[in-house]
Amino acid sequence: MTEGTSHPHAHPSPGNASENAAAERALEYLAAHREAHLQGLLDFLRLKSISALPAHRDDVRRTARFVAEALKEAGLSTVRIEETKGHPIVYGEWLGAPGRPTVLLYGHYDVQPVDPEALWTTPPFEPDIRDGKIYARGASDDKGPVWMHIKALEAMMNTAGSLPVNVKVLIEGEEEIGSPHLEPYVARHREALRADVVLISDTTLLGPGQPAITVGLRGLAALEVRLKGARGDLHSGLYGGIVMNPIQALVQLLSTLHDADGRVRVPGFYDDVRPLSAEERAAMAALAPTEDQLLSELDVPALFGEAGYTPLERNWARPTLELNGIFGGFQDEGIKTVIPSTAGAKISCRLVPDQDPKRIQALIADHLRRHTPPGVTLEVTFFDTGRPFLAPADHPAVQAAADALSQAYGKETAFIRMGGSIPIVEAFDRLLGAPIVLMGFGLPTENFHAPDEHFHLENYDRGLEALVRSFYAFPETLRTAPSV
Amino acid sequence: MTEGTSHPHAHPSPGNASENAAAERALEYLAAHREAHLQGLLDFLRLKSISALPAHRDDVRRTARFVAEALKEAGLSTVRIEETKGHPIVYGEWLGAPGRPTVLLYGHYDVQPVDPEALWTTPPFEPDIRDGKIYARGASDDKGPVWMHIKALEAMMNTAGSLPVNVKVLIEGEEEIGSPHLEPYVARHREALRADVVLISDTTLLGPGQPAITVGLRGLAALEVRLKGARGDLHSGLYGGIVMNPIQALVQLLSTLHDADGRVRVPGFYDDVRPLSAEERAAMAALAPTEDQLLSELDVPALFGEAGYTPLERNWARPTLELNGIFGGFQDEGIKTVIPSTAGAKISCRLVPDQDPKRIQALIADHLRRHTPPGVTLEVTFFDTGRPFLAPADHPAVQAAADALSQAYGKETAFIRMGGSIPIVEAFDRLLGAPIVLMGFGLPTENFHAPDEHFHLENYDRGLEALVRSFYAFPETLRTAPSV
Repeated sequence: MTEGTSHPHAHPSPGNASENAAAERALEYLAAHREAHLQGLLDFLRLKSISALPAHRDDVRRTARFVAEALKEAGLSTVRIEETKGHPIVYGEWLGAPGRPTVLLYGHYDVQPVDPEALWTTPPFEPDIRDGKIYARGASDDKGPVWMHIKALEAMMNTAGSLPVNVKVLIEGEEEIGSPHLEPYVARHREALRADVVLISDTTLLGPGQPAITVGLRGLAALEVRLKGARGDLHSGLYGGIVMNPIQALVQLLSTLHDADGRVRVPGFYDDVRPLSAEERAAMAALAPTEDQLLSELDVPALFGEAGYTPLERNWARPTLELNGIFGGFQDEGIKTVIPSTAGAKISCRLVPDQDPKRIQALIADHLRRHTPPGVTLEVTFFDTGRPFLAPADHPAVQAAADALSQAYGKETAFIRMGGSIPIVEAFDRLLGAPIVLMGFGLPTENFHAPDEHFHLENYDRGLEALVRSFYAFPETLRTAPSV
Repeated sequence: MTEGTSHPHAHPSPGNASENAAAERALEYLAAHREAHLQGLLDFLRLKSISALPAHRDDVRRTARFVAEALKEAGLSTVRIEETKGHPIVYGEWLGAPGRPTVLLYGHYDVQPVDPEALWTTPPFEPDIRDGKIYARGASDDKGPVWMHIKALEAMMNTAGSLPVNVKVLIEGEEEIGSPHLEPYVARHREALRADVVLISDTTLLGPGQPAITVGLRGLAALEVRLKGARGDLHSGLYGGIVMNPIQALVQLLSTLHDADGRVRVPGFYDDVRPLSAEERAAMAALAPTEDQLLSELDVPALFGEAGYTPLERNWARPTLELNGIFGGFQDEGIKTVIPSTAGAKISCRLVPDQDPKRIQALIADHLRRHTPPGVTLEVTFFDTGRPFLAPADHPAVQAAADALSQAYGKETAFIRMGGSIPIVEAFDRLLGAPIVLMGFGLPTENFHAPDEHFHLENYDRGLEALVRSFYAFPETLRTAPSV
């Protein structure tokens, strides 16, 4: 796709004739086999691959084998189930296009737990198609998109007899529990996994019918704070007025974390934040929902956040420090006149380039230490971290994927950021050094991680087209010699 | 006891000869029947009169009948079980001393729940005597002291054939659940319950071997605050930076309740607080534990409370505002990146004369309203209140009881306050207008409301002596004509 422009909002442009023809044949194959492929997806969705629950360990393993089989059927030459200390990684490759670029596909076959199961309209592992949507746990996150990757490969292989690029596929079973074994695996197999572009479909469109490439993800730094007072819980009659109440100390301590304008008051917190350019702010302003939309969607009396930034800027491109949980003392009905022995809170920060999560954790811990009131002792526990990620939106591979998406949807592709975090994306970026294309097919409203998760068939169909067109466009845009 | 002095620290002085002789005969009777009386107390302690638990409703009723029987055996002429909408009140009287004063005795036969039962060395309802202590739920609070009242009456009746005063006895079964039906009962029977002194044994000594009359109790005003943000819990990636987090709003709001010096910042909170006199401060200084004692007892790095007052002053004579509970969001192991829909806290104030609990609730609610951050809505719920109480330490009845205690313990009686609240005491004060003598026999270390509650037999014996001596001293000190 040599005509591809570097402007993020470029209109789709036609590729060369033979590649276009090959893409059309693959799309005809997908149309002809649509019912069979959907039945395969429903089988995939019936497998209870809940990675968080030890009771589903065998289900997870069964699902890995199912994925490996599907990759073999798609025509990959090598398929392996790679053991880890947790759930296995499925690896597959087809390297039959020497001299052409290599695409690394990443996805995950594990799913979130399903409780509260009573809130599901149809059971989470009995997929149901209604109103043009597949309802099932994992339909949108991420079995549907993984299936699309596999079926796109199968369609190209079965129509052209080969793929337009070399392909490496990595489908893990621990994404929903933080991918504890994937980054070490990638680090160990850095050379073998070398690729010219990494394609991941685990993000969302901007909205219905609005294709998007995600170019920014926030990082994460989480910790827990606990304040300890007396040896045990005390009766507030006997000891009220004598000791510092750990809850009182906690609210005083936590109240120092933000100012009234919503800015984080931890010294150094904003030091490494890359400022937004005027261009970026203009692009975000064009994509932003109205304040009224947000107010009615959330049912809050007012929006709130760091002064000087729009809600979308605050969510996509500014770091936040959130109190995710707070606890201490009596929580049941009525009143109990207790001074608890301890109180605590869960804190997590969403980070943006170039903030370093470990440094942020240390800054927060220092701040907490300096502001701990008298009469209590502080304990801080650090949780896992994830670095923020920002893709080069003007990279030709990103542009090619955006053009393919635009063509499939008949609408210009937006370049968006996400307020959330996918830590492994940053790890791919750092370890493999290849551009990463986050081409998602879910919608933010599809209840991933919640009851009645679903996936729109419209995006299954359009997404398959976008994937096929991207594969045929990559060879022209990725001129780097592949490492195979 | 005409020689009784009004100085709170007076040494015990002998009463007149015939009353002294009658008291000695009653004490001899108690010594002779000690084993049988203790067996009776153990039977009383075996009854599972947990007022808070509906499953023990019949046990509570059985216990009321047990108490009524014991009052009849003690020789009271009238004994009734008075029904309420909850657990019954046991009422007894002996009005055979016309022209003499009337003493109203109050106590409660119900007990606290026993969980966690696993932490009891011996089962809570299988009383066990070891190391000079009775271990059982209710031993100290309040079955032991109630039993002492009954046995003191029995001893006087069985040795003198009559009591030195008229007696009305009110023993309720709902003290541990806030006495919901007692105050209305007292209000309805104000005339019938008229007395010249109210004697209650539901407080503590100052310490082992240190007799005390409690002359001050703090009042109580409790409320709950809830802040509501978005319709439901939100993902902090998708919405972090867009809305006010209710936990963040809560810690900001609650942090406005105290200043760094531990003073309550609610406007008007201290308006009606009666200042401590130099005399009161000196008396408290003489009774105060050392800071080292408190630090090691509580295992805190430092004491804390309102600047300008000692720990004992803060606990006895200054109001406090405590955060008894706080809750919101994720509280389990690890981290969950949620912005919760709501967060809340439980607040209770210990109040001192002349603070009005309803006014304090209103002041706090106003303050909370004024300081609620943007983006959340506030809900305040009021709980029950109790007024503070301060007895006239120089009243002759109080002095007579103090002298009797001093004689029984061979040590001067201290006049103490308690940081806690017994709302019904203030109700007696207000409705009956008679002086109230809080003569307690428990020790603060006896684990009431906790596992391994116990009661020292030494205080059972000395307390019986103090009670008998008080009864024989009252006629000389209470010259008011009784209403009978």
